[in-house]
Amino acid sequence: MATSTRRRQLGRPVSIVGAGITHFGAFKEKTSRDLFTEAFQDMMGSLDQGMDVQDIECGYLGNYSSDLFEGQGHTAPIIADWLGMTPAPITRIENACASSGSALREGMMAIASGLYDVVLVGGVEKMTNLPTEGVTDVLATAADVLYEIPAGMTFPGIYGALAKAHMDRYETNLDHLLKVGIKNHVNGALNPKAQFNISILDLMESRKTRAEERGQPVPEWKDEMDFLNDARANPWIAWPLRLYDCAPITDGAACVLLVASELAGDFTDKPVHIVGTGQATGRPLHDAEELTSLSAAKEAAGQAYRMAGVEAKDIQVAEVHDCFTIAEIIATEDLGFFAPGEGPRAVDEGRTSRDGDRPINTSGGLKAKGHPVGASGVGQVIEVFHQLRGEAGERQLKNPDLELGLTHNVGGTGGTCVVNIMRRG
Amino acid sequence: MATSTRRRQLGRPVSIVGAGITHFGAFKEKTSRDLFTEAFQDMMGSLDQGMDVQDIECGYLGNYSSDLFEGQGHTAPIIADWLGMTPAPITRIENACASSGSALREGMMAIASGLYDVVLVGGVEKMTNLPTEGVTDVLATAADVLYEIPAGMTFPGIYGALAKAHMDRYETNLDHLLKVGIKNHVNGALNPKAQFNISILDLMESRKTRAEERGQPVPEWKDEMDFLNDARANPWIAWPLRLYDCAPITDGAACVLLVASELAGDFTDKPVHIVGTGQATGRPLHDAEELTSLSAAKEAAGQAYRMAGVEAKDIQVAEVHDCFTIAEIIATEDLGFFAPGEGPRAVDEGRTSRDGDRPINTSGGLKAKGHPVGASGVGQVIEVFHQLRGEAGERQLKNPDLELGLTHNVGGTGGTCVVNIMRRG
Repeated sequence: MATSTRRRQLGRPVSIVGAGITHFGAFKEKTSRDLFTEAFQDMMGSLDQGMDVQDIECGYLGNYSSDLFEGQGHTAPIIADWLGMTPAPITRIENACASSGSALREGMMAIASGLYDVVLVGGVEKMTNLPTEGVTDVLATAADVLYEIPAGMTFPGIYGALAKAHMDRYETNLDHLLKVGIKNHVNGALNPKAQFNISILDLMESRKTRAEERGQPVPEWKDEMDFLNDARANPWIAWPLRLYDCAPITDGAACVLLVASELAGDFTDKPVHIVGTGQATGRPLHDAEELTSLSAAKEAAGQAYRMAGVEAKDIQVAEVHDCFTIAEIIATEDLGFFAPGEGPRAVDEGRTSRDGDRPINTSGGLKAKGHPVGASGVGQVIEVFHQLRGEAGERQLKNPDLELGLTHNVGGTGGTCVVNIMRRG
Repeated sequence: MATSTRRRQLGRPVSIVGAGITHFGAFKEKTSRDLFTEAFQDMMGSLDQGMDVQDIECGYLGNYSSDLFEGQGHTAPIIADWLGMTPAPITRIENACASSGSALREGMMAIASGLYDVVLVGGVEKMTNLPTEGVTDVLATAADVLYEIPAGMTFPGIYGALAKAHMDRYETNLDHLLKVGIKNHVNGALNPKAQFNISILDLMESRKTRAEERGQPVPEWKDEMDFLNDARANPWIAWPLRLYDCAPITDGAACVLLVASELAGDFTDKPVHIVGTGQATGRPLHDAEELTSLSAAKEAAGQAYRMAGVEAKDIQVAEVHDCFTIAEIIATEDLGFFAPGEGPRAVDEGRTSRDGDRPINTSGGLKAKGHPVGASGVGQVIEVFHQLRGEAGERQLKNPDLELGLTHNVGGTGGTCVVNIMRRG
């Protein structure tokens, strides 16, 4: 296939010069436009040199379904008006949970095309207006309504099936899944913008303290694994996935400012260059070739590696799409960080921790940072941007040679996958 | 503002080499994927040289709300799988009724960026699953849910307000509106793919015949104006707009194949080059500067004219966004075809008819051809493509020097406007 081998190049290099993100969480009183404006103001504050909003020439907004979540279609120009960006064009990009990963690519192409020099790319989702079952139903529309939904599938069930397939084929077990969650919460505890800015250990201790304060029997959990294996603390959602295997329901927004690389110096002394990008489409789950890997992820990664002229082993930090813990394990295999079936062992050995040789989801990932679906792709990019600039605070990686990072953003069960590779400027 | 004066250029020219479109209408038994597949097969059949679906490197799908109309999100990769396009990336573009106008621009930028050479751009909407009130409610979400919807506005009311403002400010009257509809139905009668493939005169006659056959009193309408002024035949929807001032509710799909211009000869001997493009964002209606013009349309047109190096007077054929008859009149003024307030006189004088000096909506427009909202923008492009190639059948313009055409696609009340200019190759 033409898409599988060709090395594609952008006609003009593109850099990220600013980034802004809201606190991720549940904010009942805020609308998408409120959230996006917060992220935008945070981005404006991140620029070394000031900028007028009217200098933005074009915008892209990743959003999964403000239609179903807020009853608002055509949401992009309404947000642009809120920011004072009119008459600059803005376009909503929808590829389910990969919406803002795709939006980033549209922003890059808009610059590389020669049409624009300064482009705002962001994402937003306001999910908590609906009750949990309602959110699950809205997310389920990202599966195939003709084949998958009528079979009773929702995403916890779908990813549960992937986990079961991985366990059947490889030596993956329930503990591997739980350890991904523990690791990501350890990272999230160091991220002040994270929805779960707390480790599982501290969650466990706070549960004990609360029981004690209420005069209830204090559970005798001795460590995180003990806590997570207790169905009272961590109920089954869709076997083999439990509550702490699932990313939360989140409100949030994130945005970055992209510019033609030759102009980056006008905005910052520390640009981050986007050196590789890939996007691919996979068959829906009911029609997929296999369940232990997402074909679109492998394809998108191959495109991005070829464009960047690097290999999987060169990537020093990665944010991957851990909508469920099993998804992180599969991602690390699809990206070539570990051989098929070797992802679980890498978790066991701590290789994906912040002090491992292959740190994954230093932000806390979707699991702990939160998963406002339309914003998640750009949220990942922002973590890599901060790590490469040495601005990740308490969770900053120690590696002094850190210069190459990757993001992996999935829509559905790999109907869409976007991979971007960034290099420190 | 930076966006208002700069002449923007694509780094690489882009051409349209094939086009396909479904019959527009109400097709209860078909899904979006069925419709888009039909349009795709029609496009494949339009290519002078054959092509393998796997030669398509990237796709864009304009769609307003398969979420709300069909309960299907993440619709683009599902359609790509249906076509056999995987693993090529595909992305859904949403800008309300301008969704596929925007999608065309993303396709152009994808090629101009250097990333892709062969890109599929289309649009689809399956609207008739819901009852009419439901469709009106879904469309209303393209207005501002914080300010406009709570005031009781739906789009017929919003465009009614624009019509009233135009009538107050200029010499526009109800007859001008009706004449736009008559003209577009005359054109639609010559378009075998049109939802209303019939003139108002023939509609009137068929009503008389039906009454006669049923033994009912036969109405004594003497011409179209007489018919349209009868509230039994043409009821008020939102004063001053009547039923025949409104575009219908439509199912349909359309797509074009874009390629880097240097490759066009591999696909066809008659490429159509996209020589100008513009997109702009306008404030929502509640916050608009004026009601007799759409600021985003003027801005987008200015961008497109500058890029193409042409002026309004050079455009020989145009498809404009006549979601309501008043919208066509305003469009012809915003595009600079006629001075502000002069649009109605041009209608009176027949200048916008097929044999006028400024033919508008030769396809029948949204009014008669139909308005499957996510497909309408590409549908417009296809009409210009056919006219410039001399393939418009009975409605082909006679002008032997026909070489420059324009499309004008609006989302909401000008929250988004996209203008594209095409030249015969």
